[in-house]
Amino acid sequence: MTSLLLEISPHQVEVAETLIQVGRFVVIFLVARAIAELMVRLQLPTILGELVAGVLIGVSGLHLIVPPGTQATINAGVLSVLGSLAEILPGDVQSIYNETFPSLQAVSQIGLFALLFLTGLESELDELVAVGVQASTVAVAGVVLPFALGTAGLVVVFHVPLIPAVFAGAAMTATSIGITASVFGELKWLKRKEGQIVIGAAVLDDILGIVILAVVVAVVGGGAFSLAPLLKLCLAAIAFVAVALVLSRKAAPAFDWVVDRLKAPGDVAVASFLVLTVCCFAAQAIGLEAALGAFAAGLILSASKHTHDIDAAVKPLVALFATVFFVLIGTGMDLSVLNPFDPANREGLLVAGFLLLVAIAGKVAAGWSYVSAEPTNRLVVGLGMMPRGEVGLIFLGLGSQAGILTPALEAAILLMVIGTTFLAPILLRLVIPAEPNGAAPLAP
Amino acid sequence: MTSLLLEISPHQVEVAETLIQVGRFVVIFLVARAIAELMVRLQLPTILGELVAGVLIGVSGLHLIVPPGTQATINAGVLSVLGSLAEILPGDVQSIYNETFPSLQAVSQIGLFALLFLTGLESELDELVAVGVQASTVAVAGVVLPFALGTAGLVVVFHVPLIPAVFAGAAMTATSIGITASVFGELKWLKRKEGQIVIGAAVLDDILGIVILAVVVAVVGGGAFSLAPLLKLCLAAIAFVAVALVLSRKAAPAFDWVVDRLKAPGDVAVASFLVLTVCCFAAQAIGLEAALGAFAAGLILSASKHTHDIDAAVKPLVALFATVFFVLIGTGMDLSVLNPFDPANREGLLVAGFLLLVAIAGKVAAGWSYVSAEPTNRLVVGLGMMPRGEVGLIFLGLGSQAGILTPALEAAILLMVIGTTFLAPILLRLVIPAEPNGAAPLAP
Repeated sequence: MTSLLLEISPHQVEVAETLIQVGRFVVIFLVARAIAELMVRLQLPTILGELVAGVLIGVSGLHLIVPPGTQATINAGVLSVLGSLAEILPGDVQSIYNETFPSLQAVSQIGLFALLFLTGLESELDELVAVGVQASTVAVAGVVLPFALGTAGLVVVFHVPLIPAVFAGAAMTATSIGITASVFGELKWLKRKEGQIVIGAAVLDDILGIVILAVVVAVVGGGAFSLAPLLKLCLAAIAFVAVALVLSRKAAPAFDWVVDRLKAPGDVAVASFLVLTVCCFAAQAIGLEAALGAFAAGLILSASKHTHDIDAAVKPLVALFATVFFVLIGTGMDLSVLNPFDPANREGLLVAGFLLLVAIAGKVAAGWSYVSAEPTNRLVVGLGMMPRGEVGLIFLGLGSQAGILTPALEAAILLMVIGTTFLAPILLRLVIPAEPNGAAPLAP
Repeated sequence: MTSLLLEISPHQVEVAETLIQVGRFVVIFLVARAIAELMVRLQLPTILGELVAGVLIGVSGLHLIVPPGTQATINAGVLSVLGSLAEILPGDVQSIYNETFPSLQAVSQIGLFALLFLTGLESELDELVAVGVQASTVAVAGVVLPFALGTAGLVVVFHVPLIPAVFAGAAMTATSIGITASVFGELKWLKRKEGQIVIGAAVLDDILGIVILAVVVAVVGGGAFSLAPLLKLCLAAIAFVAVALVLSRKAAPAFDWVVDRLKAPGDVAVASFLVLTVCCFAAQAIGLEAALGAFAAGLILSASKHTHDIDAAVKPLVALFATVFFVLIGTGMDLSVLNPFDPANREGLLVAGFLLLVAIAGKVAAGWSYVSAEPTNRLVVGLGMMPRGEVGLIFLGLGSQAGILTPALEAAILLMVIGTTFLAPILLRLVIPAEPNGAAPLAP
């Protein structure tokens, strides 16, 4: 691949890079927007349109946006058009495409961070603390139930060996906070008690997920299982939550003081982005997910008097780049494992049906795990915890790389992830009644 | 490098990638904002602060942000801190740093496109057309004068061979529309006649620059010089300007019609970004710069009734990512060639002094090249055309790669680029009087 690239001039490479990078945005936004508009008219969340758009243009569809990890190739027609425009060979276009793909992923990460930042910004700290116990119960129940039922079922019913069964069970514990936050935000249920329980539980679930991942990787690695790094991780998680809670109470006035003294243009945008990136860095540095830092950053600034301006500065980033994030999730999903006419798929489909059932039932049941004085819609809470999304795919990717999953089990986990991810927005939309004017009810 | 990477786990690589990518944003925004605030208090344009910030953290400074092309290495302390956080070797951090750098450049490109889009959006089409003749005169004079004087001087006075002299002359024809647009926008002179002449001339200069580049590359390449591709390029440029002008008159109502029918959230942001990326793709596809397409996209939408919302959606992208773009320009500038105590620099400094003089005089003189019935500030026009910025650096990079420049001439061109880039915002600020309240006068 590289030897081919050496024969073409840097200018041609640059032209091809620009065409590919800009062209990918055109395809993503055109298709995602078209299907999102359709979804809105069907009174379904737009994120579903973004996921479907990804599937349509991804490895299961037109092969326009193909993550290099999936080993699929770009649509040959597109390669030859781009090649003739940049005056290089289609093979070179494919190489440059793959080399520039991380840039698209980096932009999509900015979108995810911006979305979680916005979710934190629109969260009520007091409300989050008030539902802390309920959120913890939901998170723990939503981890234990799918893990225990899934692992046990795989071992007992399907005679899967213990290690892959544990791995599949672990993949079922995830919750995609991004998808949940997006759906709740659009339906204006983020500030309701159900919304706050789900967001709080999803955040805790992300933290639990990191711990589970560390345990599973240690078990799978087969090396000496040591408790020290795990304890360190748990301590880091607790410290992180504690610091974030303290800063949410104390740091906003300091932020406002600084912003009031800034005079150069774009002050609020840059200052918020700085807080966002610092928190992402801090979270990642102590071993947690950077995305958790983004949520914490939003929570910290939710008490600022500039929230309206921060909101206005961050929303375009979410509209543009979180869309890229969700479309990319869709592009990586290979739906061919769904085809029941291919005999090779049948074992996977059977296991998948079981996993999907447990994945849905486990999380929905978690909605009934907490105690609440006032009535809440427990089904909304359970369904909100359901989508595995990108977190499930990360688990799957790790399992594939470690080589511990059979093709059938790999397909089954993928189907479980796809099923929960697509069903959650649809079911939530059905459960949350629309207002007569087509909009969802506003939070009180 | 790659063999080292194979020994560390994908998870460690991912942690390191996130720390590096997020950390780079933290450094860039922290330093750029601090110095931009200083500049505002000195009544200087903030872009100067961004360039200075880049120099401070780049190859001439702290080695925190180092473009891989410069062959400099990252600050060893930073490498070891990041390495210990991600539990990998400092050498691996450097590899991952270099591999992820294109993502930062892609984000900075989005910033440049957003800035030029905003410039087009805030331009008055009728005013631009009205100053079309003046802008063309300024553009042509600003290309011919520095090129002729520079090339002739290098050959006659400094006995530089013809081909490198032609190349250096060509590098002096560039105008950085980004820097100019940023300064004029901040000083609120974009909608004045001077602002429109400079923007129009800078756009034409970009087109001329592409043609000049094609000629120079053909000459330097030494191959058979054929007129056909050049004619094609000229035709493409004319067609592009014509289509953009027609669309500016006709396409905005169609855009408004579509936007009015969009219901999913983020409609204006996504629709504008779609127009932006389509225009960038079209411009690049016919052989022009994608950045020109971004300007054209803004111009096309400047007649939309949604300009206020478009403006609000694009401004955060400019505030965040155009900052990254200008900081990156600064990081790549190696100021060590400025040291007069190093004897190796003296020849370059002498040539540089000459080039800088011609570069300033040639563009400033172009400000007196047009005929205007009403009085205009010709010095503002001339100074506005002065910064070579990233366009000059692109020429320099091509010359280096082709191996046709001596180290002294390379240093001289770099100094000419640095000098014009830094002097232009300062001189413009001195020439454009500040209002008593510290703000620049508003356009009438």
